Amino acid sequence: MIIYGRNPVREAIAAGRRPVKQIWAAKGAIAEFGGARPASNEEIAKLAGTDAHQGVCADVAAYHYVGAHELLARKDPLIVVLDEIQDPQNLGAIARTAEAAGADGLVIPDRRSAEVTPSACKASAGAVEYLPIARVRNIADFLGEAKAAGHWIYGAAGDGQAYDTVDYSGGRVLVMGAEGTGLRPRVRETCDVLVALPQRGRIESLNVSAAAAVLVYAMVAGN
Amino acid sequence: MIIYGRNPVREAIAAGRRPVKQIWAAKGAIAEFGGARPASNEEIAKLAGTDAHQGVCADVAAYHYVGAHELLARKDPLIVVLDEIQDPQNLGAIARTAEAAGADGLVIPDRRSAEVTPSACKASAGAVEYLPIARVRNIADFLGEAKAAGHWIYGAAGDGQAYDTVDYSGGRVLVMGAEGTGLRPRVRETCDVLVALPQRGRIESLNVSAAAAVLVYAMVAGN
Repeated sequence: MIIYGRNPVREAIAAGRRPVKQIWAAKGAIAEFGGARPASNEEIAKLAGTDAHQGVCADVAAYHYVGAHELLARKDPLIVVLDEIQDPQNLGAIARTAEAAGADGLVIPDRRSAEVTPSACKASAGAVEYLPIARVRNIADFLGEAKAAGHWIYGAAGDGQAYDTVDYSGGRVLVMGAEGTGLRPRVRETCDVLVALPQRGRIESLNVSAAAAVLVYAMVAGN
Repeated sequence: MIIYGRNPVREAIAAGRRPVKQIWAAKGAIAEFGGARPASNEEIAKLAGTDAHQGVCADVAAYHYVGAHELLARKDPLIVVLDEIQDPQNLGAIARTAEAAGADGLVIPDRRSAEVTPSACKASAGAVEYLPIARVRNIADFLGEAKAAGHWIYGAAGDGQAYDTVDYSGGRVLVMGAEGTGLRPRVRETCDVLVALPQRGRIESLNVSAAAAVLVYAMVAGN
């Protein structure tokens, strides 16, 4: 997999979770990435398949997903579940926020979901190299297991209760629905509490990564 | 100015703040935009200068900025100031969150800053058509005027006090620094309180639009 951008390549190296086979860097970036093969910006754009490479790309091993049980076994974890999020930019942005806030990990379904693609790596500023991310077959089943493990399931929904009136102590699983459509019915039913952000404007809905940032930080503050 | 994307075009029409001279729509979008001139996706891409047009673009009047004094004159306003934010995506994303949260407006400097470009309109999902946005010559001077008007100035800074321990009652001005570099010294000195989000991860910093979302909602909850 060819990842690109300064932060993603730097963090892939620093985290050491997946082998970095080869790095290519253009003039402006070569000093930062020792051992990189010199390349033109055009060559890097061709390798990366995008112009958003900031002069560096790297051939790295496939992304290493963790097992969901590893996340559930933690003490009072904060786990963010993305229910069929489609945009790798949103996946990456939420991973970045979750990592910065100290969340334990992210869970995504193994179908009909954005994955940890190079553009998600870029949007995460490399946070996906540290944050554990699990893929599960069925989100509702995973939530059932999380409940059985004693954690509380909070679903983000416009008609939920005000998010800042909720007690977030203990193990927390936050479920964010897809852009535009929200939580699917079976997922929604599995939630213990639905939480809403006040919407006082004319525009219908917040961006899912902005909503996730507010909710993740509210949950961090609660523990 | 050619704006593009379903939400931006829809909200520009609905808000009615700036004349819409002409709309072009491709097959999938023409039913939604009555009066649009039929066009191919290729023609729309050429007009919009991007493939991210979702089958619709419109020729609209220049963006109408408001006067900063109009924002300062409001009762206990919540004003978000972007100190040399460079990325129109971040400007748009913050505008979207601010509008949804019910903030009174946004202030940007008239130089060295992202402006309300078509890509900012797109990233805002059309929120910029409702949210008042002002451009000022000098951010530090504007903050001085805001202080004189009795409002409190909160600057986002990694070394500030924990954001969730602060009293946000009264008029609030939140200042977000540029991506990567943060608040400039003179702007920082002008702030009454510096506020920080806890950073518990390995990645250095939150994305500015995620940080803004958390802080804006904290300030909304405080009033």
